Amino acid sequence: MSTGLDSGATVTNKQVILRDHVSGFPKESDFDFTTTTVQLRVPEGSNSVLVKNLYLSCDPYMRSRMGKPDPSSASPAQSFAPGKPIIGFGVSRVIESAHPDYNKGDLLWGFVGWEEYSVITPIPNVHFKIQDTDVPLSYYTGILGMPGMTAYAGFYEICSPKKGETVYVSAASGAVGQLVGQFAKMMGCYVVGSAGSKEKVDLLKNKFGFDDAFNYKEEQDLTAALKRCFPKGIDIYFENVGGKMLDAVLLNMNPHGRIAVCGMISQYNLKDHEGVHNLSSIIYKRIRIQGFAVFDFYEKYSKFLEFVIPCIKEGKIAYVEDVAEGLEKGPEALVGLFHGKNVGKQVVVVAHE
Amino acid sequence: MSTGLDSGATVTNKQVILRDHVSGFPKESDFDFTTTTVQLRVPEGSNSVLVKNLYLSCDPYMRSRMGKPDPSSASPAQSFAPGKPIIGFGVSRVIESAHPDYNKGDLLWGFVGWEEYSVITPIPNVHFKIQDTDVPLSYYTGILGMPGMTAYAGFYEICSPKKGETVYVSAASGAVGQLVGQFAKMMGCYVVGSAGSKEKVDLLKNKFGFDDAFNYKEEQDLTAALKRCFPKGIDIYFENVGGKMLDAVLLNMNPHGRIAVCGMISQYNLKDHEGVHNLSSIIYKRIRIQGFAVFDFYEKYSKFLEFVIPCIKEGKIAYVEDVAEGLEKGPEALVGLFHGKNVGKQVVVVAHE
Repeated sequence: MSTGLDSGATVTNKQVILRDHVSGFPKESDFDFTTTTVQLRVPEGSNSVLVKNLYLSCDPYMRSRMGKPDPSSASPAQSFAPGKPIIGFGVSRVIESAHPDYNKGDLLWGFVGWEEYSVITPIPNVHFKIQDTDVPLSYYTGILGMPGMTAYAGFYEICSPKKGETVYVSAASGAVGQLVGQFAKMMGCYVVGSAGSKEKVDLLKNKFGFDDAFNYKEEQDLTAALKRCFPKGIDIYFENVGGKMLDAVLLNMNPHGRIAVCGMISQYNLKDHEGVHNLSSIIYKRIRIQGFAVFDFYEKYSKFLEFVIPCIKEGKIAYVEDVAEGLEKGPEALVGLFHGKNVGKQVVVVAHE
Repeated sequence: MSTGLDSGATVTNKQVILRDHVSGFPKESDFDFTTTTVQLRVPEGSNSVLVKNLYLSCDPYMRSRMGKPDPSSASPAQSFAPGKPIIGFGVSRVIESAHPDYNKGDLLWGFVGWEEYSVITPIPNVHFKIQDTDVPLSYYTGILGMPGMTAYAGFYEICSPKKGETVYVSAASGAVGQLVGQFAKMMGCYVVGSAGSKEKVDLLKNKFGFDDAFNYKEEQDLTAALKRCFPKGIDIYFENVGGKMLDAVLLNMNPHGRIAVCGMISQYNLKDHEGVHNLSSIIYKRIRIQGFAVFDFYEKYSKFLEFVIPCIKEGKIAYVEDVAEGLEKGPEALVGLFHGKNVGKQVVVVAHE
């Protein structure tokens, strides 16, 4: 297809730049805008592609890339470089390609810069060609991309779920949580989620079909809240939050319970992480706590799409996005994620084409 | 065989009694001695056995039975009743039996009272008939009993060990730790242990064949100590300690590392357990933390004995006991466990027959 862009032309390229490494909660002022120019051409002799970025994804893990480089960290992601565009998942259209697997006009999702145009060298399991365009393209930042695959692998591969079990999901209205809850319902589990506002709790109960939900900010005692929601205990906890929530969960877990650790967003902006005090529950309850990372599971991505795309098309799975219009809204959207301002998956639209 | 005791005779029965529920570190004064009498006869119409107790076992889990009953605890073991003999693992000779599986003169190990004679109703997987008496009988409180089976199940079933991996064992000279380290060496792992005295560290290196060992009490910085012992990181941690040690381990774990949680003895006597701060390491390192309890694995007990008894007889496995002579030394031995006073498996001899 035509991209409507002249090969070789020079166009302006707005970018979101990290000013300096972040400590504590990220602020909008940690980011700058700059406008450079880019020639619509891939470097000669490369196997790169030049892409026009359409949608950018705001994800909690990005906080780990904003801090100073930490050699002791096991995170595979390097810190963002101050003065350079930050990097994240995006959905992009190929404008020019020197890569044998990509043609002009193709769509892909994967790591790109927070800018209008990026030159990238596609890497398997980092960049994925989009085949099915009969769904909103922005979904490839969420339900059909990294967060969707995270929910799929985390729930089916890590939680060892069985019909009839009780499942608790924290940060349940987020990109991953909303899907985990729906996967669990499809399996015949009893599912409770927590979130940080009445609007989100309503969404969980009325849109995503959770059996119950609560606003953690309105609970004096998280242990008691979980006891109320799970009088017979929790079999599976899908962990997105960490800290005090994990402590409360540990006291409510059932014997042989499983905790899939997807994230701990409550801790990412703290200099010193909160202490978790109830770990001795692990022993007699024989609890399994398992951290996981989505990139270990991408070989199942096409199987996942075969499963989830029909569910979307048939209305079996609901999906809610929180869309920020324009790259200039990017920093606000990204920063808002760490204050729970987003309702559903936070996306930034760079261009509607 | 003759037990040398007249059936029906009445004999004195010295007992170790819990005065009241314990908070904080147990003290010798939490225990009392009393002497009652017992008729050497099983209750009519019962399927009980009357046993003469020979060896009693001091185990860290016993602390969980000394506190007030806690309905929120998932521990399968009930609190000890004040005014009654405490209960623990022991090795005993059957004096009288109304149970079809036990005859007068048989030996068994399992739960008995801390007293000279107990009437018990043998329960499968709680009481085990001793078949091989060609080893010291006291070993059935340790390497051939619950702690041995704990080490076996914990290492082979929970740690998923592979040849060449690095293994760290805390409380490594204890009943369980000394065996885990030796099992790991037999598998071709690099094994480091920690303990709380020079004597114990020497034992780890010179008697049990650990590749390295350190005295945790002499380390200013546990994270640095582990970094020194494991420059390439820890693949497997066998957790007996909890608290600060777990925090230091988490920073030194390798990706896809496994932590088998056997116990957390550093926490048992604290009213408020220490907070563990480095749990976010679980995520990117994809660490699995797995609690386990030996009673889930007793179906493998006979297989375990087939493996371990030849190892003992052929000298392939070393085993060290710390023996207290006489029931009257029981409270001191039990209390000492929580101060690390025992060197090796702590046993109390009630009678040599």
